[in-house]
Amino acid sequence: MRYAPSDLPVFTLTTGPVDAYPAVLRGLASTVLYDYDPAFQATYQRVSEKLATVVKAQTMPVILQGEPVLGLEAAAASLIGADDVVLNLVNGVYSKGFEGWAARNGATILELAVPYDRVIDPAEVARVLTARPDITIVAACHHDTPSGTINPIAEIGAVVAAHGALFLVDAVSSFGGMMVDAASAQIDLLITGPNKCLGCPPGLSILGVSNRAWATMKANKLAPRGSILSILDWEDAWRADKPFPFTPSVAEINGLEAALDLYLAEGPEQVWARHALTAAACRAGLKAMGLAIWAAEESFASPTATAMRTPEGIDEAELRATVRARYGVVLSSGRGETLGKLTRIGHMGPTAQPLYAVVALTALAGALGALGHSVDVGAGVAAALAVIDAG
Amino acid sequence: MRYAPSDLPVFTLTTGPVDAYPAVLRGLASTVLYDYDPAFQATYQRVSEKLATVVKAQTMPVILQGEPVLGLEAAAASLIGADDVVLNLVNGVYSKGFEGWAARNGATILELAVPYDRVIDPAEVARVLTARPDITIVAACHHDTPSGTINPIAEIGAVVAAHGALFLVDAVSSFGGMMVDAASAQIDLLITGPNKCLGCPPGLSILGVSNRAWATMKANKLAPRGSILSILDWEDAWRADKPFPFTPSVAEINGLEAALDLYLAEGPEQVWARHALTAAACRAGLKAMGLAIWAAEESFASPTATAMRTPEGIDEAELRATVRARYGVVLSSGRGETLGKLTRIGHMGPTAQPLYAVVALTALAGALGALGHSVDVGAGVAAALAVIDAG
Amino acid sequence: MRYAPSDLPVFTLTTGPVDAYPAVLRGLASTVLYDYDPAFQATYQRVSEKLATVVKAQTMPVILQGEPVLGLEAAAASLIGADDVVLNLVNGVYSKGFEGWAARNGATILELAVPYDRVIDPAEVARVLTARPDITIVAACHHDTPSGTINPIAEIGAVVAAHGALFLVDAVSSFGGMMVDAASAQIDLLITGPNKCLGCPPGLSILGVSNRAWATMKANKLAPRGSILSILDWEDAWRADKPFPFTPSVAEINGLEAALDLYLAEGPEQVWARHALTAAACRAGLKAMGLAIWAAEESFASPTATAMRTPEGIDEAELRATVRARYGVVLSSGRGETLGKLTRIGHMGPTAQPLYAVVALTALAGALGALGHSVDVGAGVAAALAVIDAG
Amino acid sequence: MRYAPSDLPVFTLTTGPVDAYPAVLRGLASTVLYDYDPAFQATYQRVSEKLATVVKAQTMPVILQGEPVLGLEAAAASLIGADDVVLNLVNGVYSKGFEGWAARNGATILELAVPYDRVIDPAEVARVLTARPDITIVAACHHDTPSGTINPIAEIGAVVAAHGALFLVDAVSSFGGMMVDAASAQIDLLITGPNKCLGCPPGLSILGVSNRAWATMKANKLAPRGSILSILDWEDAWRADKPFPFTPSVAEINGLEAALDLYLAEGPEQVWARHALTAAACRAGLKAMGLAIWAAEESFASPTATAMRTPEGIDEAELRATVRARYGVVLSSGRGETLGKLTRIGHMGPTAQPLYAVVALTALAGALGALGHSVDVGAGVAAALAVIDAG
Repeated sequence: MRYAPSDLPVFTLTTGPVDAYPAVLRGLASTVLYDYDPAFQATYQRVSEKLATVVKAQTMPVILQGEPVLGLEAAAASLIGADDVVLNLVNGVYSKGFEGWAARNGATILELAVPYDRVIDPAEVARVLTARPDITIVAACHHDTPSGTINPIAEIGAVVAAHGALFLVDAVSSFGGMMVDAASAQIDLLITGPNKCLGCPPGLSILGVSNRAWATMKANKLAPRGSILSILDWEDAWRADKPFPFTPSVAEINGLEAALDLYLAEGPEQVWARHALTAAACRAGLKAMGLAIWAAEESFASPTATAMRTPEGIDEAELRATVRARYGVVLSSGRGETLGKLTRIGHMGPTAQPLYAVVALTALAGALGALGHSVDVGAGVAAALAVIDAG
Repeated sequence: MRYAPSDLPVFTLTTGPVDAYPAVLRGLASTVLYDYDPAFQATYQRVSEKLATVVKAQTMPVILQGEPVLGLEAAAASLIGADDVVLNLVNGVYSKGFEGWAARNGATILELAVPYDRVIDPAEVARVLTARPDITIVAACHHDTPSGTINPIAEIGAVVAAHGALFLVDAVSSFGGMMVDAASAQIDLLITGPNKCLGCPPGLSILGVSNRAWATMKANKLAPRGSILSILDWEDAWRADKPFPFTPSVAEINGLEAALDLYLAEGPEQVWARHALTAAACRAGLKAMGLAIWAAEESFASPTATAMRTPEGIDEAELRATVRARYGVVLSSGRGETLGKLTRIGHMGPTAQPLYAVVALTALAGALGALGHSVDVGAGVAAALAVIDAG
Repeated sequence: MRYAPSDLPVFTLTTGPVDAYPAVLRGLASTVLYDYDPAFQATYQRVSEKLATVVKAQTMPVILQGEPVLGLEAAAASLIGADDVVLNLVNGVYSKGFEGWAARNGATILELAVPYDRVIDPAEVARVLTARPDITIVAACHHDTPSGTINPIAEIGAVVAAHGALFLVDAVSSFGGMMVDAASAQIDLLITGPNKCLGCPPGLSILGVSNRAWATMKANKLAPRGSILSILDWEDAWRADKPFPFTPSVAEINGLEAALDLYLAEGPEQVWARHALTAAACRAGLKAMGLAIWAAEESFASPTATAMRTPEGIDEAELRATVRARYGVVLSSGRGETLGKLTRIGHMGPTAQPLYAVVALTALAGALGALGHSVDVGAGVAAALAVIDAG
Repeated sequence: MRYAPSDLPVFTLTTGPVDAYPAVLRGLASTVLYDYDPAFQATYQRVSEKLATVVKAQTMPVILQGEPVLGLEAAAASLIGADDVVLNLVNGVYSKGFEGWAARNGATILELAVPYDRVIDPAEVARVLTARPDITIVAACHHDTPSGTINPIAEIGAVVAAHGALFLVDAVSSFGGMMVDAASAQIDLLITGPNKCLGCPPGLSILGVSNRAWATMKANKLAPRGSILSILDWEDAWRADKPFPFTPSVAEINGLEAALDLYLAEGPEQVWARHALTAAACRAGLKAMGLAIWAAEESFASPTATAMRTPEGIDEAELRATVRARYGVVLSSGRGETLGKLTRIGHMGPTAQPLYAVVALTALAGALGALGHSVDVGAGVAAALAVIDAG
């Protein structure tokens, strides 16, 4: 039995897009209202207010009408001026990639880099900030997805705050699946989206902005205005009585409301717990099968995705193709420097349920065996189950 | 009986967003696949190929992941270089507004402008082009929605082609509701979206690009790359075997496929006919009620929206609010210079059905009467019905 | 322009099935749970409790798993024993048709009949009951849909209660669109369904049962048990801790919950008001066009459907076919004795919005004209609008 | 981590209702048309014709508007007359239960019974038929779901055909998941439904009827007419130009069409193969964990459900409750005589995918362990994976 590439997969256990919650799909199918209809304007404000309770920024969240790369590019373009000195904390492909956007307006970019299987040490950040008092902005990626590693963002945030720099954080693939918000981590510009752990399709960015970040963006002459890249244009758009700079993505907003309703009804802590437990079960299973996670230390590993180091002699692309063809399971590859070196199993939104770790482990074991790298699937599943049962 | 602002309206007869076709809503609710899943990559290529049959550009259409303001801004930023001389044809708020994007890279902007209730005369374009042989790009808006007027785009296109300039056309709110494609109008860069006459929600841009336009964009050092504004990055993304620059809006793509399937099954000519008939019925009804359309001549009026000139003494915003409160009907206002001067009735996608003209006429008549401007609703509906019956 | 029979219609203005509310369609698309899953059992109890607040019977409503003909057949088979003397109140095709089911168990059937364009006079009922003290059950149809007439059910209920007979009422096409419940009309066995004024698809029956009706059914040896026709088997099925006799229609139950949520959120009185206003506008419009309603007196006419008497010389089937072909509007025919004599316009659930009366009037006027029976559409719409504006 | 009873389960691995395919859910959400609208009448005929290709009866399938208990009751009431001698083949709760419906019209009921963990031997049927040449009808249940056992229906059918009796078969929970149709098994009246292996919600019955069965039903004076239980009334209802006896369940019909489209696109043999492989993997896993299937011989076991014999000392209800609470997995209990003695894992429609066997095995192992009956989950999953990989 084989699944053809054109067959719908049975399990999409990727690092995003993930399949949306059924209730979100129904939300997307809601009546499309005119954006200036008062019923939609009220919806937009209501969604913004629900978002505010979980983003916890000093001001009302901004929703941008494109998936989070828009949010990231817009954040860099808006916050970083030509005179800024930016410390970019690099521990993976995405944090490294941010440099391109950060440099667009001519700022000076400094880098604190560690190998891509490690995380940033807050003490190192403190040392650099002490050495360079001229640093005005620190940028970090909370979950550098192509490595499946999680930075200690609250600890870094405390260091940045003590220094007085602005803290810009890409929390795209951690937000909604673990504890992270603008308040707890003292983030001035938090960028995320609903298409990872909130279980929506891609299409929106969510920004949490501090008062200082607003002031900085407003003072930045290079900050986009009259552009899809503008954050400034959307400052008041959340208010039912204010215009939109351009047409918001009505269906995605409806889907987002459904996702927020699910998230708040289940309770964020409960949601985070099932993300963490699924990841822990997955790591335990891999280890028991003699496989390694990518992260140099288990404490670096993300609760929202598990990166498995590709065993010697295995072609990573062939591994994923085999997993899909034999079991109907879709996994994610690495990106850039990690491409070909690891396979990622997403634990995001609807797939952050512990038994999905068992599905992934079984499929990986079967495919590895088929490719000549036999592992003990029984040991893997037993170890995962032990973690789940202790959870 | 009154409809509260928070009540869902009964009829959304706006100029977009319009309510989506039910089949499109179901398409939006389809399983969200991982963007690199082969089943989704095949979907993306299939959607692109269906689009190609209707956009009729020389190359495969580009889908950008944001509503058409993204397409327009990206088109300007990509096509227009610092050395270009752009002739912007202005007959309304949207064509005038394009100037801001066109000028971004430092090009010289010339303008051929007419009053906002008129359309561009191709002979005038020819005269300007003869006078200014250095013009390299001509920009036009096919349907300047805030005026409800339609330019003779194929005739203008012939003039531009004869001159040898590139022709950039905003066909956002005409495409899919009337005859317009890159081939018939000799358009080098056609920008549209599925959220008007194709009956999708807002969230995507569609671009039809000629070979010359690709060459020009590639040669343009200022054309965005590595940005949400990049068209270049998406050149090959339609191919199932090529990567996406960033995550496409999976649900919107699924919705677009449903819309294209409807459009092709019904037959474009048939779809255009019902748009045209609905608009004709609407205009006839307005006239019979002693109301004026905004367009200076009826031949200027769009088949996809009807702009009614606000009668003396009527507050336009109050008129729309009354229409909604009394009848549950949502109409569109003007924009910018036309704001307060006209009310627009959309005939787009699912609402381009002749009897919706009767709904709009009845609601307008009732609201005008309530505001002290009595009109003969019977005459209006009878005139509309006569047009429908002759259609 | 013509709509082909295979084209989806634009407006379904029938007497049921009507198009469902969009929120109901989304409800139908909810995850299908196992019937014995505690989450579904809780749903079933919750739906039953919401129903109870609007059915207002002495006991918890019973949901049967088939459209209301099941409810009617089951009610007759369960309530009426061989020794009963049933007074069947006949003023239309449906009330007459009930006789077949009522007689199944061998009961004596008496009939109080009036012409099918009239309604039952409670005083007449009182006279018959006085003359026949042996009558044990009185059966009536609240809204005899094929005639579009409404019986004064509360007044009849008072007479029946005074006599001491059981009162069985078919309220299928009135419930949810006007005031009627088991308490206000002293109904012992009320049969309705969600597929008319509640705006669901057909597939369920809803029964409101008095304590006496339960006792009578339990004592009736001929009452179905172990059958799809059994009401008795479902007595406790509403309780989350009790089994279902057989598998309930899970999707339809989900749809019903969405419909009840809409109904309760809008408020029953508000819902009834828009049904009544739509019907009143429709009648006024017909009259102004020189057309007659079927009901002998306007006070007999239903607020949930308007039956138009077919003008001399018009073929009723051809009229409806013309309405559909020219305008995409679907109307209902008569049934049985009224077939060919009238056309019905439904005002039910989502189509009980006043402007739909205008849509129907315009389409009827156009089609009548096309068939050689010209009417003044303008007068019709103006009259309808006047009623709406006064509403 | 625990799932509350009110939480939506993560995996519904029951023997029906099963969760519907997503495409079926979208089908259910389609526009609800008036049943007499030509577009719906064409849909109904088209669905019937698609059904005909898979039911393979001599005549067009009949769709009854209620879940398959309606089909079974109607079949018994319609086919079996007072003078018939019915041989009821009993090897489980459902086949035994059919006796009640079979006896309704006063027929003589004979029984060939075997223990509920065994299947019917065609040679035994032949012996009984030889001994009782007066047998006119033989009734069997293909898949007696409460036991998870499959009768050799084609072999029995050949014996019945040789005898000349009519063959009535309940194929509710096998049809669509394995080879069974009216032609291959010489069935005169096949009763099934879309809510098991076709992946629809419950709400319809499907009947395949031979010419002889039609003749017999028509000659049967006791066959229901003018009733929800009538099959006769629906004989011609599949034709677009014929009336329905009463309103069909429009949404369920739309859902059924989506299910048939999926089934035919995937290919029945392919669908059956994944049902069989899932069941085989499940059985292998149970065995490897030292657990027993209910069926006395593995060859008796169904490909569409696996019944696990409850280990000594385990409370079956507690086991399922534990599976749900700890892992979010819903399984089915036994029924009647098998209640408390076995737990059933469905492999039906969307859940007939091999890795779901692993999900079920893991959850069962975990719950058994929690209840003090430790099993080797690793051995179970490894055995299941070996079967899958060999499949």
